[in-house]
Amino acid sequence: MIDHSRIRSAAFRAKVTSAEQAASFIRPGAMVGMSGFTGSGYPKAVPQALAAIIEAEKKTGAEWTEAERTGVERTGIEKAGENPFRIRLLTGASTGPELDGALARADGIAFRMPYNSDPVLRGLINAGAVDYLDMHLSHVAPMTWQGFFGRMDVAVIEAVAIREDGTIVPSSSVGNNKTWLDTARQVIIEVNSWQDAALEGMHDIWYGTALPPERQPIPLVRPDDRIGQTTLRVDPAKVVAVVETFAPDRNAPFAPPDDAARAIAGHLMEFFRHEVARGRLPPSLLPLQSGVGNVANAVMAGLDDGPFENLTAFTEVIQDGMLGMLESGKMRVASATAFSLSPGAAEALNARMREFRTKIILRQQEISNHPELVRRLGCIAMNGLIESDIYGNVNSTQIMGSHIQNGIGGSGDFARNSYLSVFMTPSTAKHGRISAIVPMASHVDHITQDSQILVTEQGLADLRGLSPRQRAETIIRNCAHPDYRPMLLDYFRRAREGSYGRQSPHLLDESLSWHQRFIETGSMLPA
Amino acid sequence: MIDHSRIRSAAFRAKVTSAEQAASFIRPGAMVGMSGFTGSGYPKAVPQALAAIIEAEKKTGAEWTEAERTGVERTGIEKAGENPFRIRLLTGASTGPELDGALARADGIAFRMPYNSDPVLRGLINAGAVDYLDMHLSHVAPMTWQGFFGRMDVAVIEAVAIREDGTIVPSSSVGNNKTWLDTARQVIIEVNSWQDAALEGMHDIWYGTALPPERQPIPLVRPDDRIGQTTLRVDPAKVVAVVETFAPDRNAPFAPPDDAARAIAGHLMEFFRHEVARGRLPPSLLPLQSGVGNVANAVMAGLDDGPFENLTAFTEVIQDGMLGMLESGKMRVASATAFSLSPGAAEALNARMREFRTKIILRQQEISNHPELVRRLGCIAMNGLIESDIYGNVNSTQIMGSHIQNGIGGSGDFARNSYLSVFMTPSTAKHGRISAIVPMASHVDHITQDSQILVTEQGLADLRGLSPRQRAETIIRNCAHPDYRPMLLDYFRRAREGSYGRQSPHLLDESLSWHQRFIETGSMLPA
Repeated sequence: MIDHSRIRSAAFRAKVTSAEQAASFIRPGAMVGMSGFTGSGYPKAVPQALAAIIEAEKKTGAEWTEAERTGVERTGIEKAGENPFRIRLLTGASTGPELDGALARADGIAFRMPYNSDPVLRGLINAGAVDYLDMHLSHVAPMTWQGFFGRMDVAVIEAVAIREDGTIVPSSSVGNNKTWLDTARQVIIEVNSWQDAALEGMHDIWYGTALPPERQPIPLVRPDDRIGQTTLRVDPAKVVAVVETFAPDRNAPFAPPDDAARAIAGHLMEFFRHEVARGRLPPSLLPLQSGVGNVANAVMAGLDDGPFENLTAFTEVIQDGMLGMLESGKMRVASATAFSLSPGAAEALNARMREFRTKIILRQQEISNHPELVRRLGCIAMNGLIESDIYGNVNSTQIMGSHIQNGIGGSGDFARNSYLSVFMTPSTAKHGRISAIVPMASHVDHITQDSQILVTEQGLADLRGLSPRQRAETIIRNCAHPDYRPMLLDYFRRAREGSYGRQSPHLLDESLSWHQRFIETGSMLPA
Repeated sequence: MIDHSRIRSAAFRAKVTSAEQAASFIRPGAMVGMSGFTGSGYPKAVPQALAAIIEAEKKTGAEWTEAERTGVERTGIEKAGENPFRIRLLTGASTGPELDGALARADGIAFRMPYNSDPVLRGLINAGAVDYLDMHLSHVAPMTWQGFFGRMDVAVIEAVAIREDGTIVPSSSVGNNKTWLDTARQVIIEVNSWQDAALEGMHDIWYGTALPPERQPIPLVRPDDRIGQTTLRVDPAKVVAVVETFAPDRNAPFAPPDDAARAIAGHLMEFFRHEVARGRLPPSLLPLQSGVGNVANAVMAGLDDGPFENLTAFTEVIQDGMLGMLESGKMRVASATAFSLSPGAAEALNARMREFRTKIILRQQEISNHPELVRRLGCIAMNGLIESDIYGNVNSTQIMGSHIQNGIGGSGDFARNSYLSVFMTPSTAKHGRISAIVPMASHVDHITQDSQILVTEQGLADLRGLSPRQRAETIIRNCAHPDYRPMLLDYFRRAREGSYGRQSPHLLDESLSWHQRFIETGSMLPA
């Protein structure tokens, strides 16, 4: 099923080799930049071959110097992660089981950034065996150019094709590929024939980025503006291997929206109607940013059934629901950096790629998430959360304040700079044993200044222009689950009386007790 | 000493009246936008006259309807704040005792945003008697245009002069004056002859702002670019009163830098030299943003003595140290929205305003703090803090998690979007009874992703590219005070063993115990 005609440059065709041979360019301690964003466009063959090499080396018991072993100053504390062959791994965002999963199972990752959602790797991170830095996704590329992370050794990039002129047709995600290709000393390209050839022409890669003081305004004023070129450049002298593959992107299927997700979507639709009626939003709203998951898909379904026409998206990923709106015509155009589709939706997209190509633009992630553009376009940011406290401090990443779920991703890029920042979640998790509204967030990713609209299936809290105490009353009343509402009201009442200060009243010997109770008993509810 | 020639328009001269008469346009429950930013350019006469009216009405025991009393849905909880005549007060940032102080003493403020540093008002806020919303300073103007805060009733704006054409020469701060003048139904102008007439021409007011989807790129690529006009526009039909004053801006004098401040400045200078040597900063650095206070002034003094030439500033306020650098020639140009000068420096500035006018540009605060510009210019953000936890979560605002000090101000606008985000503080406060490095921050204003360099007199922690556990080791080792370092190491060691997850290990039944101990005993140190 491999389509050899995808490599249209003779110079690159001469570099075709096996995944094993290509993987051998990656040495212990290397800093490796791979493609991949939300399970799309990640390399599938080289990471698995690298994992096999690492496993084999473990069995031979090869000895490495300290520098070879780690390539990085390790914390030197943790017991796990003793494998001598580990790399520093950077991507766009999450990838698939053939990349993060395979390398994690081989204990081949010493350091990971900027985002992970692989369960095997998550386990190692939360065991303290892998150092993980989750970053604002718009910051990764600039900080790489700025030299803050050190030398990039190898880039491994999935492509749809290599053109006659040696430029690279990007795959189903762009992510940080431009940056990895520009900065890596050696480059490996995986040309994946499973990706539809009609992806060519969908991308918009901007080569106007620069380091300060030479930065210029980004000339984009509408989500559908094209400001760059459709392909990625690479210095052919750096390309050490080209590998041909035929392998699907792997994303988990979404569960259909449940009652809670539909209720959240309903509250949000009512709010949008109200804002349009008050003249605070245009009838076609403003460019939408949406996270992924069941709640996000329910919101997309709600918009698809709603009264708003000619919608646009300026977002990080295009998920099933957005594809549906593009198909129905409710949405005119979507700009993103990657697809995040269920297997069924991915097949449907591939079958009609030419049609969708005119409605979708994929950009590098420092542009898709750029604060300049999010602010200029006035995006409506819609993101999920793990918990919010009564003041609207939002924890998006760390369960019980220490156990990482995925990462902050682009939520900070969008929430702070958006026209409206919406956070939404069911009011409870774990069959009611965890409240999503807590006295104090056990970890903070989004401060109160960055959360304006909070929605649960219970209702919507419009927090714009409210002081912390007014926010608390609104959040508890509108969003908390009835099982937890009296406990929250009781805490807030006592905190107002006994707090050290009363700007955002707290009882510090009690503020995290719900989390501690969950850790000890498995439920935030008292016994 | 009042210079009547400052009002050069006959139409405006006809509206000159007393402060008392002008203040009578402000009714109970009104939303009032006043000028003022960091003790500069705030109205001095009308707020005091308003405070006198409020005091007089209290004595007459006048009755008001509920809507008249508050103009806002009150929390209905607090006992204090029962005065029937209170207003909603918006400014640029902090003001002076004649404004916040006078109105607070009269109990005339029901709601305040976006920033306060007045001690009387702070006391009422922390007693729960005034609702206070501290906001990102770049967000205030856009959210006002977006209609999120409701109708603006009256604007009270200090000016240096009113020109023949009816445009307003801004005073020693610009802040949100453009927005208040544009959106208020009625306008009161205070023309202050104490402000130097040579301020005319220093300002750069941009009228290219818009609501999405009509926003365009901001055409500014250097700190010294002028993109607008030197005066503010106002619809003369809205101007109900003009008041003439002669009254100085009132800022507190700075204490001279102490040993800790000088040590912090020294660590930072060494870091800058290192970054320039490594090619990660240009020899003239990048546009500086700096908070105010003794540490900031020590850093400015360090730069004034240092090897870097042709420095620039793109910042919120110009403080004594920056004026010194402009005078010495170390700094070429400074862009800000306000002055924040000690009385001596303010006099010195006024005496040589014509000379400084070519080196200083004052802009409206949604431009001085705009994320688009902070990111494009690549600012070096340098801000103070109350406490940082071992992972670099920074609390800038709330002592013991609930007692507001001032507010987040522009620190979030700059820290997230800067090229380098520096936070600095002495390692202890209250004569060693409070550690600035704590196990867990009791409130979070800046998340770990937004704090890259942490400096105390003990040393500098370069946190770029480090995972949370690596950050903790670096912060404790480099920044914590020796009295607290063993306690922090002990907490971190036990947290790594006993935490629910180990991405950012915490013991939730202990993480805020230092704060609780301070509340109970007056010291974070064990008895």
